[in-house]
Amino acid sequence: MSSGTGSAGRSSSNVDARRFEESFRAIAKIGALPGGGCERLAFSREERAAHDEFRRQAEAAGLQVRVDAIGNSFARLEPATVPEGKPPGPKDLSGSEDALPEPAVFTGSHLDTVAKGGCFDGASGVLCSLEAVIALSEAQRAGEVRLRRPVEVVAWANEEGARFAPSMMGSAVYAGVMPLEEAMAVKDRDGVSVAEALAEAGAVTIGGNAGSERAAAPGTPAAYLELHIEQGVELEEAGVPLAVVEGVQAQIAGDWVIRGRSAHAGATPMHRRADALVAAAELVTAAERIAADYEPGVATVGALSVGPGSRNSVPGTVSGTIDLRHPDEKAVAAMRGKFLEAGEEIAASRGCSFIFEELWRTPRVSFSPKILQALEDAAQSVGITRMRLFSAAGHDAVYIARIAPTAMLFVPSIGGVSHHTEEETPMEALIAGSRVLEAALTALAGLK
Amino acid sequence: MSSGTGSAGRSSSNVDARRFEESFRAIAKIGALPGGGCERLAFSREERAAHDEFRRQAEAAGLQVRVDAIGNSFARLEPATVPEGKPPGPKDLSGSEDALPEPAVFTGSHLDTVAKGGCFDGASGVLCSLEAVIALSEAQRAGEVRLRRPVEVVAWANEEGARFAPSMMGSAVYAGVMPLEEAMAVKDRDGVSVAEALAEAGAVTIGGNAGSERAAAPGTPAAYLELHIEQGVELEEAGVPLAVVEGVQAQIAGDWVIRGRSAHAGATPMHRRADALVAAAELVTAAERIAADYEPGVATVGALSVGPGSRNSVPGTVSGTIDLRHPDEKAVAAMRGKFLEAGEEIAASRGCSFIFEELWRTPRVSFSPKILQALEDAAQSVGITRMRLFSAAGHDAVYIARIAPTAMLFVPSIGGVSHHTEEETPMEALIAGSRVLEAALTALAGLK
Repeated sequence: MSSGTGSAGRSSSNVDARRFEESFRAIAKIGALPGGGCERLAFSREERAAHDEFRRQAEAAGLQVRVDAIGNSFARLEPATVPEGKPPGPKDLSGSEDALPEPAVFTGSHLDTVAKGGCFDGASGVLCSLEAVIALSEAQRAGEVRLRRPVEVVAWANEEGARFAPSMMGSAVYAGVMPLEEAMAVKDRDGVSVAEALAEAGAVTIGGNAGSERAAAPGTPAAYLELHIEQGVELEEAGVPLAVVEGVQAQIAGDWVIRGRSAHAGATPMHRRADALVAAAELVTAAERIAADYEPGVATVGALSVGPGSRNSVPGTVSGTIDLRHPDEKAVAAMRGKFLEAGEEIAASRGCSFIFEELWRTPRVSFSPKILQALEDAAQSVGITRMRLFSAAGHDAVYIARIAPTAMLFVPSIGGVSHHTEEETPMEALIAGSRVLEAALTALAGLK
Repeated sequence: MSSGTGSAGRSSSNVDARRFEESFRAIAKIGALPGGGCERLAFSREERAAHDEFRRQAEAAGLQVRVDAIGNSFARLEPATVPEGKPPGPKDLSGSEDALPEPAVFTGSHLDTVAKGGCFDGASGVLCSLEAVIALSEAQRAGEVRLRRPVEVVAWANEEGARFAPSMMGSAVYAGVMPLEEAMAVKDRDGVSVAEALAEAGAVTIGGNAGSERAAAPGTPAAYLELHIEQGVELEEAGVPLAVVEGVQAQIAGDWVIRGRSAHAGATPMHRRADALVAAAELVTAAERIAADYEPGVATVGALSVGPGSRNSVPGTVSGTIDLRHPDEKAVAAMRGKFLEAGEEIAASRGCSFIFEELWRTPRVSFSPKILQALEDAAQSVGITRMRLFSAAGHDAVYIARIAPTAMLFVPSIGGVSHHTEEETPMEALIAGSRVLEAALTALAGLK
């Protein structure tokens, strides 16, 4: 099972490149798409199968795994108790005066993907964390490390929000930002609820953990680390393999509907139309202009549907999404205002109506200076070059930052490609990232 | 069953307003939508049920009904043979020297609708025709009319092409424009073929006509009349209840795909995107501009779908439809050229690709002067004010015009609304139209 310990050429790290690659490939096979990439929508059989495989790997390494009611998985490494009759290891200096249970240090990310997504977004963070904690477990067994706190690898459920909005649902429920009952009742476009999807995917009953684990959840972690792919090009362009991430930009997400009037495509002169799709087209291009006016803000209409959607009919209704992000909260609120203004003006000028519904708003997050420093020190100790970055995408760390000192690491995305089947990160960067996590966890959970 | 004959106040017409309204309501109930309007997509259970109801009504009136392999229904009135021992009626002047079977005069339209469509498009023409032929049958029985040719009411299958492209499929097969096998193999977006849909809807086996009727089809009609709703506002604005339609404008229909690159909606700066939806939005507005440049041409993107279609992803692929129409064939070809040019330019400027596939092209049609005159004379004889119009929409008459002298009648569309649940035509206009058809059929099929 374990192979990292005792391998020649290992310095202070027990992270094993081959074991990590095997672990990564086993997860990437689940929901693998024929032409490359992965599709494991939240609460699907594929996402749940990835949680099962995560459990299998963690338990094989001697970690204790549980799944909570929303489907988050936790793999726990306890501090070693000194076995009777066995002499303490070289670093076993303190005895066992830690009578009170210490809160755990969490490290993780998510295992779900968007539709036709990549194999690196989310899974990288979970599996680099798992490898780091397995390495730590071996170091503890070998007496090279003595933990004073438990360490837990977390795989959050439904980070992407691709099928069930909002995104970062599992961490939002864990952090108390979203009530469990509310999350369970969220429905997809076909009217299927999260609770129904979980039940159908056999999720929370896997391992007999059906909902019962909620009370047993360990509550507030001592700290939270999250490694994630950058999904941008800054690392690649700087030629640096790792970033310490200082925070996440603010986001507003919403849905909108334009209603015009369906009519016959052949017999309705252009000047008599109230074409909802032409109006929507103007709104889509307006969103792009708004983002340009608020650089480095971004605006995306990611999904759009046309009714009645017949080639012979002038479109009567178009519904779509809007995603606005900016490092500055005031700027993203201003972008929202401009988008609504554009929607109303365009609709009015074409005899259409415009409705907007805000789905969620996440504030700008600044991560914990203490944890940022721990990550910097860890990278320094492992000898990895790094830079500072600010995240453009939302991550589970946004919510966990509300309940625990938190910071993130980024590894490079080749060509900046993400949410795409061709998404990729060099394996060496992932292994370097896992070593930095191992060092940071040792510092945060180990005896001083 | 019959009630028109002998009713007080009838002049030369046997058309019965109450019977027509009952017939119309019985069909409108099939596929009726909760908030009004009808949905009877071609080859669905609803469309086939409407053909069944048409059959029931026609057979109750003594007509012979058959259904051909593609699902067109024909209800036939034979010229009366003079019963032995019964004295000839007042107009029975000629004896029975017509030994050779005469080709039938056809009159009809279609019973399918677009998604969320109205109850008047198509059904008006079939049911005004059925009422006219039932009236003619009564007149023949009463000895007021003597037919030298059979008359057939036709309900063409899949005129709209809303689920299975191209439109006007039933008449295209009948006219030999499209091979039956090709039509049967056409698939919808879910990969279901026409043949499968017909089999599932129990269609061609209704009444035991499964495919066997093709050989028995009567071939080339002597003439074809089609009454249809205008789907425009010219009649309403002129305050005229009827139009004699001189022809149909040229049409080009196609599908297009823009491929960009899917990417993360939060982490991809605007200048690094190849957003297929923003490109598509520019193409949709370009289509509108092209139509304006070629007035009175029209251009419609009626359906559009976005991939991957996730709120968190920059769209990577957009596919859509395009429908171009103009009374002038050269102008519609020029519009096609401008649309392709716009698609290629827009895609190139955004790092996307553009593909166009032409699905069908129907030339400008000029109807038969002889049949136009017959319709004018019929309207004159019934005392209905009428005007001349040119059709902006395609109709089954386009294909039947290739094999038989053909012309159309338009009745008003309130507010020009069509392909919409609120589509409506005043009942009096339909009854007037049915009387004009009755008179025209008498002239075209009756003894001189």
